[in-house]
Amino acid sequence: MCELLGMSANVPTDICFSFTGLMQRGGKTGPHRDGWGIVFYEGCGCRTFHDPNPSAESEIARLVQRYAIKSRIVVSHIRRANRGRVCLENTHPFSRELWGRHWVFAHNGQLRGVKRLPLDLYQPIGTTDSEHAFCWLLSRIRAEFPEPPRRPAALWRFVYTLSQALNQRGVCNFLLSDARHLYAHCGTQLSWLTRRAPFGEARLTDADMTVDFQRETTPDDVVTVVATRPLTDNESWRIMLPGTLAIFSAGEPVTTFSG
Amino acid sequence: MCELLGMSANVPTDICFSFTGLMQRGGKTGPHRDGWGIVFYEGCGCRTFHDPNPSAESEIARLVQRYAIKSRIVVSHIRRANRGRVCLENTHPFSRELWGRHWVFAHNGQLRGVKRLPLDLYQPIGTTDSEHAFCWLLSRIRAEFPEPPRRPAALWRFVYTLSQALNQRGVCNFLLSDARHLYAHCGTQLSWLTRRAPFGEARLTDADMTVDFQRETTPDDVVTVVATRPLTDNESWRIMLPGTLAIFSAGEPVTTFSG
Repeated sequence: MCELLGMSANVPTDICFSFTGLMQRGGKTGPHRDGWGIVFYEGCGCRTFHDPNPSAESEIARLVQRYAIKSRIVVSHIRRANRGRVCLENTHPFSRELWGRHWVFAHNGQLRGVKRLPLDLYQPIGTTDSEHAFCWLLSRIRAEFPEPPRRPAALWRFVYTLSQALNQRGVCNFLLSDARHLYAHCGTQLSWLTRRAPFGEARLTDADMTVDFQRETTPDDVVTVVATRPLTDNESWRIMLPGTLAIFSAGEPVTTFSG
Repeated sequence: MCELLGMSANVPTDICFSFTGLMQRGGKTGPHRDGWGIVFYEGCGCRTFHDPNPSAESEIARLVQRYAIKSRIVVSHIRRANRGRVCLENTHPFSRELWGRHWVFAHNGQLRGVKRLPLDLYQPIGTTDSEHAFCWLLSRIRAEFPEPPRRPAALWRFVYTLSQALNQRGVCNFLLSDARHLYAHCGTQLSWLTRRAPFGEARLTDADMTVDFQRETTPDDVVTVVATRPLTDNESWRIMLPGTLAIFSAGEPVTTFSG
């Protein structure tokens, strides 16, 4: 199993606190030693950091923790390899361009026979099941919507249909973003939490670190954090039900699909 | 004008020395204050760093200088914006996937009417002429070669034909890589240099820094560096002729096309 971390916010927000918690699981409090990656959306662009080294020992991870990059959408992943060797091209999140937008994808789980799914315009660079699944998702989305649909709900429903098909093949927890929304699919394990005023104190489960969000935020800030397992032990995380796709925009859940 | 830096090597090699010289031109010894980026190939994967801040003041640039990432192919760019505002999505190098490989592109110059060139499967994310030109290049390459050609020379000649078409529209200095080769096109200004045994001492033009490559290398290392202007003042750089495309592999020039 790998661990996922995502964020959606209504103003550019740093993810240092949550990222610090996640990084401990990469070789220190958790066994996810096989690399890590993070994508920060900034405008239409992305800052991307990947490292096949354990996150708890990574110099690049320390930079990301220290250098408070602010973003409205973040997708991150720490890896415990089950399929595909440990190398840079097998390190999530994966990214591709569709409709002139960056799409990114990070996945946790194993998907039986996913490499038999036909691909069209997107081809994997590495050898993971996850990247193959992402290329299949984008190939299908592009075939269904050669242009971006005018109503995003049509896209959301289509992504849900595709995630159901993947879910039938095994364990399919994923985070996906199209630069507008954050999509979180729970196959077996995913939690989320929205922080808004009045803000309180939060304490990490995996490191001796507390933050008082009251001092770090303005009253209008709304931030949702999505993670495989709750990252703090004194806040109320919502545990997603298996088979659910939740879609977040500007820090808020906008819709949920489930069987 | 922007500045380009590329490297091709037969063994994974760090580019700290040359990068240190280039970064000075980003707001210190040169006027290229509008962001910078660098891509390091590692296996089939890429490490990519982009920053819209001036390189001479960038914390991420300092990490890249300090943290000796070793690579066989590197493409880097520092930007002085002429078209397209200063933001992350307009920061070179640009990258896309074709044939399951990372392609990257960095460009210096202005290209008249390039946005009227028709695009097919690749769409720009930002607003620069350069990214449009890259999307056009890849669209044309994909249309010509839906699969990678068995003989790379067919691809090389086709890239030369496309670079000639771009060159007619203005200033077209670029670096391109398909994860196998480094392509360097000189529209007006580009230089390169191959270092091999016996190695000597090199002295940066833009910073008070000298390196003795004899101590940093093994006798079998072969490394070519390509740059807009020579980065050292005590080595013999080859000044490319306008209209020339040079292709490098494993540190060596493999072929050159010119009018």
